[in-house]
Amino acid sequence: MSTTTAKEVILTGDRPTGPLHLGHYVGSLRQRVELQNRYEQFIIIADAQALTDNASNPEKIRQNILEVTLDYLAIGIDPKITTIFIQSLVPELAELTMYYLNLVSVARLQLNPTVKDEIKQRQFGGGVPAGFFCYPVSQAADITAFKANFIPVGADQIPVIEQSAEIVRNFNRTYNCTVLVEPKALLSNFSRLPGTDGKGKMSKSSGNAIYLCDNADTIKNKVKSMYTDPTHLKVSDPGRIEGNAVFIYLDAFDDDKKALSELKEHYQRGGLADTTVKNRLTDVLIHKLSPIATQRKEYAKDLAQIMAILKKGTEEAKEVAAKTLCEVKNAMQINYFSHPIKIDPTFNS
Amino acid sequence: MSTTTAKEVILTGDRPTGPLHLGHYVGSLRQRVELQNRYEQFIIIADAQALTDNASNPEKIRQNILEVTLDYLAIGIDPKITTIFIQSLVPELAELTMYYLNLVSVARLQLNPTVKDEIKQRQFGGGVPAGFFCYPVSQAADITAFKANFIPVGADQIPVIEQSAEIVRNFNRTYNCTVLVEPKALLSNFSRLPGTDGKGKMSKSSGNAIYLCDNADTIKNKVKSMYTDPTHLKVSDPGRIEGNAVFIYLDAFDDDKKALSELKEHYQRGGLADTTVKNRLTDVLIHKLSPIATQRKEYAKDLAQIMAILKKGTEEAKEVAAKTLCEVKNAMQINYFSHPIKIDPTFNS
Repeated sequence: MSTTTAKEVILTGDRPTGPLHLGHYVGSLRQRVELQNRYEQFIIIADAQALTDNASNPEKIRQNILEVTLDYLAIGIDPKITTIFIQSLVPELAELTMYYLNLVSVARLQLNPTVKDEIKQRQFGGGVPAGFFCYPVSQAADITAFKANFIPVGADQIPVIEQSAEIVRNFNRTYNCTVLVEPKALLSNFSRLPGTDGKGKMSKSSGNAIYLCDNADTIKNKVKSMYTDPTHLKVSDPGRIEGNAVFIYLDAFDDDKKALSELKEHYQRGGLADTTVKNRLTDVLIHKLSPIATQRKEYAKDLAQIMAILKKGTEEAKEVAAKTLCEVKNAMQINYFSHPIKIDPTFNS
Repeated sequence: MSTTTAKEVILTGDRPTGPLHLGHYVGSLRQRVELQNRYEQFIIIADAQALTDNASNPEKIRQNILEVTLDYLAIGIDPKITTIFIQSLVPELAELTMYYLNLVSVARLQLNPTVKDEIKQRQFGGGVPAGFFCYPVSQAADITAFKANFIPVGADQIPVIEQSAEIVRNFNRTYNCTVLVEPKALLSNFSRLPGTDGKGKMSKSSGNAIYLCDNADTIKNKVKSMYTDPTHLKVSDPGRIEGNAVFIYLDAFDDDKKALSELKEHYQRGGLADTTVKNRLTDVLIHKLSPIATQRKEYAKDLAQIMAILKKGTEEAKEVAAKTLCEVKNAMQINYFSHPIKIDPTFNS
């Protein structure tokens, strides 16, 4: 893709730790398909970041790079206009991270509420890996390397974007330059999809996810097991739609808003069985996901092509990141050979 | 230099934050001149590490890269057999650091007594920079990239070498390989030279250093101001040589051990003036340092040659580090294009 256009830049991406699910789809994936036409979009497959809390399981990360890429292509990310790349293969990001680590205090990292929450969730047995603790700085490297203007995120990730913006301001001030671009969060209007158990966020680790690659039978079974309104015991009872995962999913996926509105009214006044609503959701999801599954199978037939897409995207990303790193190092005067060091007679005197 | 010999590897080096002084000379520099014949020696000019607590002063680091290199060459480091290189220009070291950060816990870093002491000394105003906090991991990258067997250090640096050895064991165990080599500390038998004020270690920040590039007058004045035995008030008084900086320096630099032994006895039994001992030390130091100063001036006449030496050394170092990084990434299965990822039907199921 051309990097000479004046389009604003989006950086988005995923940690390749599992297949993508409806939560990802609603929270970010489907926006990317739209955003790629309006912005210069980079999608980072953050394998190095995934390793910060999966150091002993690199095979999982490796495998999911492929799975995630298949998901991207299947939902309609077009590698001709979106740059999909692998983080670890852009070493410039590691270099930027090292320099940014000097501009952030340990205390500041400890205060990051996103990281605090994530550390709590993960219950690291052997202590919090330093790499995990520092990942917001590594994310700042990812973001700034591409001079991203906007980062599509859920509300829970805002502190990480703020950390990046802080590093940008600190860098530009410290080195008296305008090299780095301050990123802004692009809030998704549907950032959090509950799991099928109605509890918390949909996630692989909670076992409450419907995956983009699930087949019709799996979808049917998962929807059948979904939590609805626990007070809706008899069909004739009035049901609640607030906090009812089945209706939240319908809101997110059912394109027939009129029919959905009628369904909601019926459920609320009573006389509508959960099964009926779940059948509707099953149909809607299968309708939405089966073309994705078909596309995915098609792409999976030619893995050499997938690897070629990743290779090309990574090369493009590397070129952009190398340009930024060069500007960063020039600002820091780490350009000893292009601007040879001279004797300063007043120095050290 | 050839990297195919079976010689064991030494990694040593300096943070380019100031000119080198007698403390460096006694503690490590003069050993390097001997070690370069017996070992394959890499000398790292650790500019990136120097930036961890000098982020806002890159010009100082830049200038001192040149100063330190001149010191190396002046004392007899031979760039034909020792590889002198600049840390920031070997980006493989940043990559290794990122992977190693995942193998060390935050709590472990907090326990490092060397780092604890250094943090205390530095009294960071804006909080401890995360880069500084993590520098033992970055040092592990420097050490392991060259598969160094021995690291010449003072006793105060032993915990940092232990941290590196721990990372090596953890890496080799986690990735079931033997890629990394466990480094050992090579303790200097004269690791700590007091400052001219007799207090603590000689250091630029304490203003108690005699530099390798000091001229005869400066040396004379610095020795004149040195602390001796505070109870040695009259010439006729017996003097103490224990803890007496002038005698510690003589022990380190005076090659005429017989004359020195007589001087000590005379001082201890009384009747020997501090001035006499100081004059002896001045002569010894000028005798030792003037050929170094001459060499230094000679090298400083051709800075293009100095930059060429650094460039060549850095290229050689980069080649070795790249080879190690490749082995490291292979062990972690981060070799997606050379070993393309295949579909695993049992995966994520």
